Amino acid sequence: MLTLIGLGLCDGLDITMRGKQAVEKAQHVYIEAYTSLLQCSHQELEQQLDRKIIQLSREDMELHISRVLGQAKAEKVVILVIGDVFGATTHADLFLRAKRAGIAVAVIHNASIINAIGTVGLELYRFGRTVSIPYWSQGFEPTSFLDGIKQNQERGLHTLCLLDIKAEEQRFMSVAEALMHLGKAQERSGVRILEEETVVVGVARIGCQDQQIVAAPVATLRNADFGRPPHCLVIPGRLHATPYRGGDAQGLAQSI
Amino acid sequence: MLTLIGLGLCDGLDITMRGKQAVEKAQHVYIEAYTSLLQCSHQELEQQLDRKIIQLSREDMELHISRVLGQAKAEKVVILVIGDVFGATTHADLFLRAKRAGIAVAVIHNASIINAIGTVGLELYRFGRTVSIPYWSQGFEPTSFLDGIKQNQERGLHTLCLLDIKAEEQRFMSVAEALMHLGKAQERSGVRILEEETVVVGVARIGCQDQQIVAAPVATLRNADFGRPPHCLVIPGRLHATPYRGGDAQGLAQSI
Repeated sequence: MLTLIGLGLCDGLDITMRGKQAVEKAQHVYIEAYTSLLQCSHQELEQQLDRKIIQLSREDMELHISRVLGQAKAEKVVILVIGDVFGATTHADLFLRAKRAGIAVAVIHNASIINAIGTVGLELYRFGRTVSIPYWSQGFEPTSFLDGIKQNQERGLHTLCLLDIKAEEQRFMSVAEALMHLGKAQERSGVRILEEETVVVGVARIGCQDQQIVAAPVATLRNADFGRPPHCLVIPGRLHATPYRGGDAQGLAQSI
Repeated sequence: MLTLIGLGLCDGLDITMRGKQAVEKAQHVYIEAYTSLLQCSHQELEQQLDRKIIQLSREDMELHISRVLGQAKAEKVVILVIGDVFGATTHADLFLRAKRAGIAVAVIHNASIINAIGTVGLELYRFGRTVSIPYWSQGFEPTSFLDGIKQNQERGLHTLCLLDIKAEEQRFMSVAEALMHLGKAQERSGVRILEEETVVVGVARIGCQDQQIVAAPVATLRNADFGRPPHCLVIPGRLHATPYRGGDAQGLAQSI
C-alpha cells in the first residue's frame, strides 16, 4: 500500500494526526523534497515524526521510483510531500503509476499555498488561475505567465504567482527577483500588467511563525528583503473597500 | 490570544499536530460549524481531540462573538474551522476584528476543498476562479455563477463549483441538485455552458475514506446518488490526453 501524505507548509508538526498514524504504521517512509521546501532540517523532521525518512531526489522520482512502488506491493510505504499531495504533476503521475500497477493508494491531504494564500486577506473565490514565474536560462525565457495574470486582471481577479524553486541548486526565487523577472518579461513581450505604483503583495514562509505579508507598490517591493524562502507574490485584481470583510489586502496585510 | 485552526476535510484526526497542541493549551475551544460540515459527530470530535468543544452557531458568530473575543484578551482561545481558516468571509472578518481589538491572532492552516480538489486528477494550475451554486429561494434566483464558469471555459480552465450548505436547516446541495440548478439557470439566463453529453466530475466527501469521484456526462450524473454530503462539482476546461500526467480527469477519476 502506498500512502501519499501532505506535510503542510512549515515543518513536521504540520502533519495531520491521520498522517502521523500512517507514518507510524509504515515499513518505509520517504520524502519528496525537490519540488518544494520545508522550514526545518531533515534531522528535525525525523525527530518530529520519530521515524527515519529517506529523501527522494528528482532522479529517484523520475528513474528509480519503480523500486519504491515495488515495495508498496507487499508493504506499507509512505511518501511525504511538502504542502498538499497534488500540488505538482510529479505526484499525480506517481498516483496513476501506482494505481495502474494494482497498488492500493491512499491520500492524506494538507494545506498548500493554493488555499493558505487566503491569509493575505483576499477572498479565495476572487483568485483566477495560478501562474508560475520561472527562472530564465539560455534558450528558455518564457513570458506566457504575463498572459495568465492579464486575463485574471481583465476579470478583476487576483493572481497567485508561484516562484521558481530549484532546490537541487539551492536557488529559490525571491519577491524582488520575481518583480525583476516580471519587468523583463513585460519589456520582452510588450504585455503590460504592472506599473511602478501598482500595489502587489509579497509573501514569504506562509504558515510559519515568521511569515511575512507586505502589500506595497512594485517600486518598494523590488528592494524589499523577505528573508528565507519560499516566497510568492500576489497581484490583486479589483479590491473592494470593505474594511471588515476579506477583500482589503492592504488593510489586512498591514494589520498582520 | 486567539488561534484559528483549520480542521481539514473529514474528522478530528485531520487536525495537524500543531493544531492539536494549541487545542491542548487553550482555556476555551470553540468550533464554527455552520459554514461547512464535518464527517463525524460533535461527540466523536470531542473524543478525538480530547477536549470539550463549544459550538458557535451563525447567531453566535454574528451577534455574540465579542464575548469570545473578550475571553481571548486574557486567555488562550481556539476557534476550530472546518477545512482551512480563510475559506469563508466570516473567518477573515473574525481575524480582522480580533486584530483591531488588539488581540494576538495565530492561524494554523489545513487542507480545504480549494486545494484537495487536485485529487480528481485535474491540474490545480488549470483551475480558474471557484464559483458557488446557491439554493434558489423566493426573490433570490441568481444565475451569475454561469458567467464565472463560462469565463473559465473560454480560457480552457476548469471550474470548481461549491454547492450550497444550509447546515442549520440540514440542507446540503447534492451533485444531482446542482446539475438541476445549472439547467434552470441556463434556461433563465440564456447562457449555455453544458450540454447533456458534457463530461463533468461529481465529487463527494473529499478527503474521507469513502470519497467518491465520478466523471460522466451531465445526463448520467443528474441521476447519480453520491450519498452523504458535502458534494461538489467540477466542470473541466480543456483536457490534455496525457495518460501519465495530471490532465486527464476521466482516466484518473475512473481509476480511483
